[in-house]
Amino acid sequence: MENIGYYNGTFAPIEQLKIPALDRGVYFGDGVYEALRVERHRFFALKEHLTRFRDSLTFMHIAFPMTDEALTAILQEAADRVDSDSQQLYFQVTRGTAIRTHAFPEEVQANLMIFSRGVPLADLQEYRRVVVLPDTRWGHCNIKSLNLIPSVLAAQTAKERGCSEAVFHKDGIVSECSSSNLLLLKDGILRTAPSDERILPGVTRAHFLMIAREIGVTVDESTFTLEEMQDADELMITSTSAHGLPVGFVDDKPVCGRDAALLRRLQKAYRDYFWSCIDANE
Amino acid sequence: MENIGYYNGTFAPIEQLKIPALDRGVYFGDGVYEALRVERHRFFALKEHLTRFRDSLTFMHIAFPMTDEALTAILQEAADRVDSDSQQLYFQVTRGTAIRTHAFPEEVQANLMIFSRGVPLADLQEYRRVVVLPDTRWGHCNIKSLNLIPSVLAAQTAKERGCSEAVFHKDGIVSECSSSNLLLLKDGILRTAPSDERILPGVTRAHFLMIAREIGVTVDESTFTLEEMQDADELMITSTSAHGLPVGFVDDKPVCGRDAALLRRLQKAYRDYFWSCIDANE
Repeated sequence: MENIGYYNGTFAPIEQLKIPALDRGVYFGDGVYEALRVERHRFFALKEHLTRFRDSLTFMHIAFPMTDEALTAILQEAADRVDSDSQQLYFQVTRGTAIRTHAFPEEVQANLMIFSRGVPLADLQEYRRVVVLPDTRWGHCNIKSLNLIPSVLAAQTAKERGCSEAVFHKDGIVSECSSSNLLLLKDGILRTAPSDERILPGVTRAHFLMIAREIGVTVDESTFTLEEMQDADELMITSTSAHGLPVGFVDDKPVCGRDAALLRRLQKAYRDYFWSCIDANE
Repeated sequence: MENIGYYNGTFAPIEQLKIPALDRGVYFGDGVYEALRVERHRFFALKEHLTRFRDSLTFMHIAFPMTDEALTAILQEAADRVDSDSQQLYFQVTRGTAIRTHAFPEEVQANLMIFSRGVPLADLQEYRRVVVLPDTRWGHCNIKSLNLIPSVLAAQTAKERGCSEAVFHKDGIVSECSSSNLLLLKDGILRTAPSDERILPGVTRAHFLMIAREIGVTVDESTFTLEEMQDADELMITSTSAHGLPVGFVDDKPVCGRDAALLRRLQKAYRDYFWSCIDANE
């Protein structure tokens, strides 16, 4: 099939999938999600995504009794139903289905929903454009929640300005992008904002830093300013499908392009690692 | 009927109503809402709610071509299908239905969903308890968006601590409650946080301030601190169904109760006004 949807035990093409209007995701965004790469029907870093998923559930006090093994079996079945060899698999869990009242309903059961479809990995060659926007998100950006309006509005602004992403900053301190992390190279050092409540702890970000260290690149997890971003030798975006996407323009101003050798070395080392994980994951 | 649900032209009992999994409300919370009082099948302050609803849509860049007249007719039909003489009617509009990508889909049509059911007006006699929590919400609390996780978590904390509401503060400055506004009385003056991005511009709040002025009470719309809140003569909560709910305990500490005469006068003046609006709204 071209794509698949799943909701609490039922599979259907995404466009035909229906859910109860009283799912608390519908009117409160009361749930969390993950998005995974699936190559040749094999997951990349599933364990790390499941760990972050459980962390998000814990923060939200959502009880999800399904074991990782049972969940994995359903995710695998979803992926196997899609023909594409290069998928983006999305799943979300909401608190449950109940009449709308803010406090948690009594004796509610969590809802599991899955979407999967073919989405190619991003091409890493071409330098992209980004727009800089104020970060007006809530105080827990480390939680992968369904409350995504700020990211939606920022992604739209980016699109309208011909950009691939929006970079968020708060009082001049750069946090991350609307749905990806931002890394910079300066004097051979790879720098990115530290993993705290201001950014999502990206699975690709963590693996990318690990691989950088492995090939001898110094990694500095510390906040940087808009000025430092504009003065970087190279800027890169990481997400599940963007493995070090180079940025060449910030608010239409050309930046970077001053350490392409190291940028390309990092991209290649990460993609080699990514494919070795897929190959090993039989 | 006991309750009614509606989605894009179809009425059904709330529990049976289904919506597409690809409604952007489901996975982004990409929409806005309003909640209205309906007494004897007549709306209170519908015009003000519709004005705020349009403001929220504008902020979100959601196109909703339905006229206020057409929308009102559907809301009225929903209310008329419910037997109760005292309803809370909820409606939300999401950006539309599409495969999940952050930026706005092309040529999408907004989705309208309605819930209505019997919910009594809050009793105003008994003093309630509130808990104080840090305000970690996003930077646009004046927008009535579907991204409500902070309010959900705060309402649950309040419930677990035997409280009716949670009061939000940022660095000691009080903003509002999880789903209501907070007003205080001090030396005969009615004070509440100003209408800016830190609070929802409550319809009841606005009418309550208007009525207070009409009966000769000075109104001061200025920020106040946690200390000023604890030192208030009286504290009150306003929302569509709470018309000056008195607060007697903050974090289990007894507060207020020092100007009950003015508190009761304000409550009565507001309820008289509320019922006169319902009576006039034939």
